[in-house]
Amino acid sequence: MEKWKVIDTEYLIRRPWLTARRDSVQLPDGKILDEYYVLEYPTWVNVIAVTTDRRFVMVEQYRHGLQDIFTELVAGVVEKGEAPLDAAKRELLEETGFGNGSWHLNSVLSANPSSMNNLTYSYIAEGVEPIDTQHLDDTEDINVKILSEEEVKQLLRDDKIKQSLMAAALLKYFSNI
Amino acid sequence: MEKWKVIDTEYLIRRPWLTARRDSVQLPDGKILDEYYVLEYPTWVNVIAVTTDRRFVMVEQYRHGLQDIFTELVAGVVEKGEAPLDAAKRELLEETGFGNGSWHLNSVLSANPSSMNNLTYSYIAEGVEPIDTQHLDDTEDINVKILSEEEVKQLLRDDKIKQSLMAAALLKYFSNI
Repeated sequence: MEKWKVIDTEYLIRRPWLTARRDSVQLPDGKILDEYYVLEYPTWVNVIAVTTDRRFVMVEQYRHGLQDIFTELVAGVVEKGEAPLDAAKRELLEETGFGNGSWHLNSVLSANPSSMNNLTYSYIAEGVEPIDTQHLDDTEDINVKILSEEEVKQLLRDDKIKQSLMAAALLKYFSNI
Repeated sequence: MEKWKVIDTEYLIRRPWLTARRDSVQLPDGKILDEYYVLEYPTWVNVIAVTTDRRFVMVEQYRHGLQDIFTELVAGVVEKGEAPLDAAKRELLEETGFGNGSWHLNSVLSANPSSMNNLTYSYIAEGVEPIDTQHLDDTEDINVKILSEEEVKQLLRDDKIKQSLMAAALLKYFSNI
């Protein structure tokens, strides 16, 4: 199985929140697909933040794609020149005011390897504590939710952690595989 | 926390493999965001297919977003008027030639509730068996891989099941939460 050859690329839109290109590609058997769309995004991060007393620092946010309110991990975009770990620490502090703790990488996954070009780094931060106030962007509206392990597990059982990058990260964290 | 009010909608592209719209929205505090992008997709499905001797029927496929080859669950798009369960059975048969077995719903997740409007139904099919040959679309190139439970778990440990909807589904299946 070989990579596809890109014959031509055209950008449909290049905006801060959506960059989409159309590739014309040649498959290994010679066939041409002249309309293959790829969405380009920066690297994303999310954080499983656990306090010293084993509670989970999560957030609640309105999500306009599904037009509903969801409980989520803290998450965000890696800025240009920023390391994923630093982005994760920054997002946790901005969205919740929590910091410190011991950090390590949990998983590196993709929302969709067929149509998206980015990866999501998921970190575990154990022993975090409140060190500052929340600092949100002008258009962010985020409620901090401190949940017990059992509450997080129940959300996973019920598919209430809807975003699959976050569900996968938490399920990996709790798994004994 | 309230839903956003959509003031205006404009479609940037409406093609079979990419539909993107730009919404102008009003937030609950009155602020206007005039550039919020939503990608519209049909419902997706994937299948954890397990043979009578507890082996996992999976596929290997080139994915142009990340430009690499991945081991995946059988997955696909629900056709217009089709039930998600029927789509899952159809995709398993088309991509692998496997069928029959006992089916039930495992999870309903979203690749990204902020930017995408669709859900993915993940099914467990236990006791599947080869009943036909593979029937691929003209541009599909899919290798069937029959894996042991331990091989699937190792792929999960190593983040080799890269697509988060599939990783989450398998991790939920194997979890004891």
